[in-house]
Amino acid sequence: MRAARYYQNHDIRIDDVEPPTAGPGEVLIDVAWSGICGTDLHEYLDGPIFVPPKGQPHPISGEEAPVTLGHEMSGTVAALGEGVDDLQVGQKVVVEPLLVRERDWEDPHYQLSPDMNFIGLGGGGGGLGEQIAVNRHWVHPIADSVGLDEAALIEPLSITHHAFMRSGATRGDTAIIGGAGPIGLLTAAVAKTEGLTVVVSELSDLRRQKALDAGVADYAFDPREVDVAEEVRGLTEGKGADVGFECSSVDVVLDMLLDAVRPAGVIVNVSIWGHEPKVALHKLVMKEIDLRGTIGYSYDHPATIKLVEEGRVDLRPFITGKIGLDDLIDKGFDTLINHNETAVKILVSPTGQGLES
Amino acid sequence: MRAARYYQNHDIRIDDVEPPTAGPGEVLIDVAWSGICGTDLHEYLDGPIFVPPKGQPHPISGEEAPVTLGHEMSGTVAALGEGVDDLQVGQKVVVEPLLVRERDWEDPHYQLSPDMNFIGLGGGGGGLGEQIAVNRHWVHPIADSVGLDEAALIEPLSITHHAFMRSGATRGDTAIIGGAGPIGLLTAAVAKTEGLTVVVSELSDLRRQKALDAGVADYAFDPREVDVAEEVRGLTEGKGADVGFECSSVDVVLDMLLDAVRPAGVIVNVSIWGHEPKVALHKLVMKEIDLRGTIGYSYDHPATIKLVEEGRVDLRPFITGKIGLDDLIDKGFDTLINHNETAVKILVSPTGQGLES
Repeated sequence: MRAARYYQNHDIRIDDVEPPTAGPGEVLIDVAWSGICGTDLHEYLDGPIFVPPKGQPHPISGEEAPVTLGHEMSGTVAALGEGVDDLQVGQKVVVEPLLVRERDWEDPHYQLSPDMNFIGLGGGGGGLGEQIAVNRHWVHPIADSVGLDEAALIEPLSITHHAFMRSGATRGDTAIIGGAGPIGLLTAAVAKTEGLTVVVSELSDLRRQKALDAGVADYAFDPREVDVAEEVRGLTEGKGADVGFECSSVDVVLDMLLDAVRPAGVIVNVSIWGHEPKVALHKLVMKEIDLRGTIGYSYDHPATIKLVEEGRVDLRPFITGKIGLDDLIDKGFDTLINHNETAVKILVSPTGQGLES
Repeated sequence: MRAARYYQNHDIRIDDVEPPTAGPGEVLIDVAWSGICGTDLHEYLDGPIFVPPKGQPHPISGEEAPVTLGHEMSGTVAALGEGVDDLQVGQKVVVEPLLVRERDWEDPHYQLSPDMNFIGLGGGGGGLGEQIAVNRHWVHPIADSVGLDEAALIEPLSITHHAFMRSGATRGDTAIIGGAGPIGLLTAAVAKTEGLTVVVSELSDLRRQKALDAGVADYAFDPREVDVAEEVRGLTEGKGADVGFECSSVDVVLDMLLDAVRPAGVIVNVSIWGHEPKVALHKLVMKEIDLRGTIGYSYDHPATIKLVEEGRVDLRPFITGKIGLDDLIDKGFDTLINHNETAVKILVSPTGQGLES
C-alpha cells in the first residue's frame, strides 16, 4: 500500500510499504481522511521533534525514521483481530493516536506517562497510509451520521476539548482566545458550545472573519487596532475574562492574556512553544492567575465525539481543502506554510477515494 | 510619637508625628515589634513601588509620601474606638495590613480587589511607628502565650500559608522550595507542619543549614553541586515533587522547578519579580503543570495564628536581630541588604521596649 513516510526534515516520501494486518486485540482500519497538523509542519520544517530519528528507536513503538505520518484520522473497520468482538467491519471509527505503555492506559493522566508519543509521529503506522492497525483500546466508533471528513477533525477537537476542561470554565463565563489558527478556532468552537461568551484576538482579517462566520466567536478583535484587554474588560463590567487560551505561541499574545483575564482567572497554554518566551510573571502574581499547561487528551474522545454526533460542533467550516497523497507537499504542506491565512484544515485521502476528479 | 517615614528611595526618616487616635470602629495599638520585609528593602532601594509618590495620593488611604512604613507588626490594644466591644485594652493583637475598600471586605479574593495596597506602605500608618489605629476588621487577637516578637512574623507566615493553600498540597506530598530566604523558610515551615516532605534548593550554606536546623526542611541541596530535579526524582520513585514553590525570583530556579515537579504537578510563584523571566513553557505544556500566582492573604490569618498558638510552627529560629528605630537603616536595612546570608528576620521596637540594653 502507499504511505507518506518521514525520513528527516524536508524529506517526506510517498513509499510503497507492506500493508498492516490486525494482530490480536487490534483493529485494521481503511483510512478515509487524515488531517495535516501544525505538528506535522514543525516536523517537516524543523524536525525530527516527535519522530524518533534513525538509529534511535522509540522505546514504546520500537520504530525509528522513516515512519508513516498522520495522526488526525478517520476511517472504516476493515478487519478485526483476535479477541475484538465489539466492532463491525465497515463501521466508522476514529483513532485516539497515542503511544502509551499498556500499564499506563488507565492512569488518570495517561497522556503524561513516560515516553508518551503519538501514532503517526512516533511509529505505529499513520493516517497518511491507506490502512492502519491500532489496538482496540485507541479506536473510538462514531455514529454513521457523522461524515468521515468531519470525523478526521475529532482528534484536534479533542485537544481543544481537553484544553477547555483544563480551564475549569463553566456556562456564562467569558473566554479570550489568543490566535485563531486551527487550534484557536476549535478551542473557540468548544467554548461556544459550552455556553461561554467567546472573544478572539487575531491579526488576520480572514481568520477573524472565519471565527465569526463559523459562529464560534462572539467578538473578534485585531490587536493592532484596539487594546484587546480593554475591550474584554468593557464586555465584562470591568473585571476581565474568566479564562484565556494561548493558541499562538507569541510572547505578546500571552502578555495580552495576562492583562485580559480577571483576578483569580485562568490561562490555558494550548500552543507548543519553540522558544522560551519572556513572561510578565508580576501580572500573574498580582492577579493570582493560574497558567495551566495542556497536552493531548485523556478520556476526552467520548465527550468530543458526542459534541460532533449531536451537531453541537460543526467541523465542516474548518475543512478548507481535500487532496490526495501525491499532492501532500505541494498542495498540503506548502499551502499551510505559505498561505496559512486562508487554509485551516487540509484533509488527505490516502487512497484518493472521496476526491473530486 | 516617633515613626519611620518613607519619603523616596534611600530617604527614610525618623520623624516626630502626631499620634493616631481610635476613630469609630477602630483599634488603637501600641506597637511592640515590626519586622523588616523584603518589600521594604525594594522600596528603599528602587521605590516607590507600593508607596504612593508625593502628589499621587492613594485612592483608598488618600495618603501620599511621606508615609509610615512597617506592615509586619504585633502589639497590644491601647484603646478601643466607638462600637468596638469585643477586644480588651492590653490584649495582644496582630494586624492584617490591607488597604481594601469596605465594599470588597467580604469578597472571596478581597486581596485582589481594585487598588489594593498595604497598611505600612500605601498609608494608614505603620508598624514602624509607636502606635497605629486600624479598623477592627483587620485586627486579629492572639493568645497571651504567643510572644509578641514571634507574633510579628505572623504576617509573613500568612503570606506563605496562603501560598501553601494555593498549591492544593496535602499530607504525604513532596514539596520542592526554590530559595531559602525568609519567605522560602516560612513556606517550608508551613509545608512541614502540614505533613509534607520538604526539599529546599538554596545556594547559601548558612541558609540551607538554617532550614535543616529549624526543622522545616528534610533535605537541602546546593544547586551548584547537584542536579536538584534529579535528587527530587530520586526521593519520589522517579516521579518528581507534587508541588514547587518559587521563592527566589531567579530564572534558573523557576526552570529547576519545572524540571523537578511531577506531571500534573503545581508550582506556586511566591516571589515578586522585578524583571520578566524567560520561562520554558514547553516544559509546563508537556507535563501539564499549573503555575499559580499568589499575593498576600485572604482569610488566612485565623489559621496561621492557630499554627503559632498551637506551637505547630516555631517562628523563633527566624528572628535574627532586634533593634530600635534609630538603628533602622544602619543595623536593619543595611544588614539585610549586605549580609543577607546570616540575617533572616530583623524586628524593630519603635519605642525601644524589649531591647537588651
